[in-house]
Amino acid sequence: MTSARPASLDVVGIGNALVDVLSHEADAFVEQHGLVRGAMSLIDADRAEHLYDAMGPAIEISGGSAANTMVGVTSLGGTAAFVGRVRDDQLGDVFAHDIRAAGVQFETQPAADGMASGRCLIVVTPDAERTLNTFLGAAAEIGPDDVGPGLIGAAQVTYLEGYLFDQPSAKDAFRHAAHLAHDAGRRVALTLSDGFCVDRHRDDFHALVEHDVDVLFANENEICSLYEVDAFDDALQNVLHHCEIAALTRSAKGSVIVSGDDVHVIDAHPVDGAVVDTTGAGDLYAAGFLYGLTHGYDLGTCGRLGALSAAEVIAHMGARPEVSLAELAAPLLGS
Amino acid sequence: MTSARPASLDVVGIGNALVDVLSHEADAFVEQHGLVRGAMSLIDADRAEHLYDAMGPAIEISGGSAANTMVGVTSLGGTAAFVGRVRDDQLGDVFAHDIRAAGVQFETQPAADGMASGRCLIVVTPDAERTLNTFLGAAAEIGPDDVGPGLIGAAQVTYLEGYLFDQPSAKDAFRHAAHLAHDAGRRVALTLSDGFCVDRHRDDFHALVEHDVDVLFANENEICSLYEVDAFDDALQNVLHHCEIAALTRSAKGSVIVSGDDVHVIDAHPVDGAVVDTTGAGDLYAAGFLYGLTHGYDLGTCGRLGALSAAEVIAHMGARPEVSLAELAAPLLGS
Repeated sequence: MTSARPASLDVVGIGNALVDVLSHEADAFVEQHGLVRGAMSLIDADRAEHLYDAMGPAIEISGGSAANTMVGVTSLGGTAAFVGRVRDDQLGDVFAHDIRAAGVQFETQPAADGMASGRCLIVVTPDAERTLNTFLGAAAEIGPDDVGPGLIGAAQVTYLEGYLFDQPSAKDAFRHAAHLAHDAGRRVALTLSDGFCVDRHRDDFHALVEHDVDVLFANENEICSLYEVDAFDDALQNVLHHCEIAALTRSAKGSVIVSGDDVHVIDAHPVDGAVVDTTGAGDLYAAGFLYGLTHGYDLGTCGRLGALSAAEVIAHMGARPEVSLAELAAPLLGS
Repeated sequence: MTSARPASLDVVGIGNALVDVLSHEADAFVEQHGLVRGAMSLIDADRAEHLYDAMGPAIEISGGSAANTMVGVTSLGGTAAFVGRVRDDQLGDVFAHDIRAAGVQFETQPAADGMASGRCLIVVTPDAERTLNTFLGAAAEIGPDDVGPGLIGAAQVTYLEGYLFDQPSAKDAFRHAAHLAHDAGRRVALTLSDGFCVDRHRDDFHALVEHDVDVLFANENEICSLYEVDAFDDALQNVLHHCEIAALTRSAKGSVIVSGDDVHVIDAHPVDGAVVDTTGAGDLYAAGFLYGLTHGYDLGTCGRLGALSAAEVIAHMGARPEVSLAELAAPLLGS
């Protein structure tokens, strides 16, 4: 893999453009409404309306897994672009405003018709666990035409969320982007996104990890689901030597990074105060890691940047950092 | 490293022969008596008497780090011998009785004169942490003459405790045994024993790990002390590729095993009930690991056997298993 020209961007992320709608609810709410605790479930427009009516006072914050990661990269001082589809409606405006305000390049044109902008209704239970219910809406309409060789070739890493595999045209966009990236001599990174998402697309993800992915992000649940094993170490044995870099997150147990005969075992970063909302922990870990990787840091430092970024985002509601990650990371980077 | 003949023993352990004297004490006891919490401190006969007088009702249980490990190996169904010195007194009789009753070969002759048998006064605080105060006594008099080529050559692995480095003649026995083992084509294993022990002998241990040790056992505190770093991953980077196998234990965070490009991240085994007394956790981890290693199991299974054995011993007072580890391990080994 050699690159034809210097990259002008660190990372381009492709994913579902979503606005998060978060409310705190009691544990009983999860059962009453038949939600799948801790997972991401896809819902249709009717179900979204019904569930939204049942939720208490909520806050709206721009989200979307890969979009959160791109915001994290810019917060660390990196350069990032995002590809994802919204509708030209109010939530679409909010999404576009927020991601651009965070310094992320975002050029995907909003759809003039079709479904409304996507949203993710997030129920946060008292244990800070989040249960995601996603109405994809316009986000589902992203396709190969949204992914051009100019943008993909400009970035050191093309970062793809596994959720894209839930919709045929998004899946095509995913594959197209991966090919463009490799054609341009760039790296392809994938996050497995969610254990249930892995269940839905296990064979596809196996083939991707084996052949197309250079940098794999997965949490313990996801990597165990991919290989259909119960123990983390069994999953680790499966992933060893199957992609260039694998960064496996384990919540409070920290993360494990393997790459050839290089291995790092990184502790979780201490959280400032209580863990309030774990939404975005994985997204921001990926952000820190990718920032480190695209700035020439060793993999241990990449993992520590990931841990630090995740710790910031779980200390408050919402999946994007509230303070400058670059400032938080300065002591670690000696900058 | 090739072996001239089949080994008739799995492991021979060389260490301080000690009887543990354990009492539960309040946290204040540790400060009142100037003890070094969680560590092993060497004390003289007078101090031992004074501290013993201050301790509440105690129980006596045969201990000694390497001796505990050998008992663990036999409890798993392996074969083991122990080399260590007692005096021909009551505590010496207790030690010899217990280790032989556990099925460990023990042929070292008791000293007919000199200091009394060694003992370790162990203060267990309400958090189940143990603070060790060792009067070595006769144990310190072990020397090269106690270590013969017949016994060392008979064992697949010679297991040495770092505590031996605290006494000149024991240190000579250590080096002599390591040379005999390698001459016989066997493996040498070392446990770093204690963070303060590592402080006392850092240069020696560096040289050993680099040149003489095939299998290294260390807990997080010890390995960080060896390399004078704060973060586990920094210690891991130092030890990678510097000995054939390193098994690093992290208490509730489980263990990490590295060997060439083989890596395993093993979770702690669930403890049956509360953690009562962590004495022997590292000793029994080593036992499970060495049993697995000498019976042809992969390193992941070795780690799981270590975790399972450690979990048994921390669920009760004392550093030797109360039930058959072979029975506990049967589901794991499919036997």
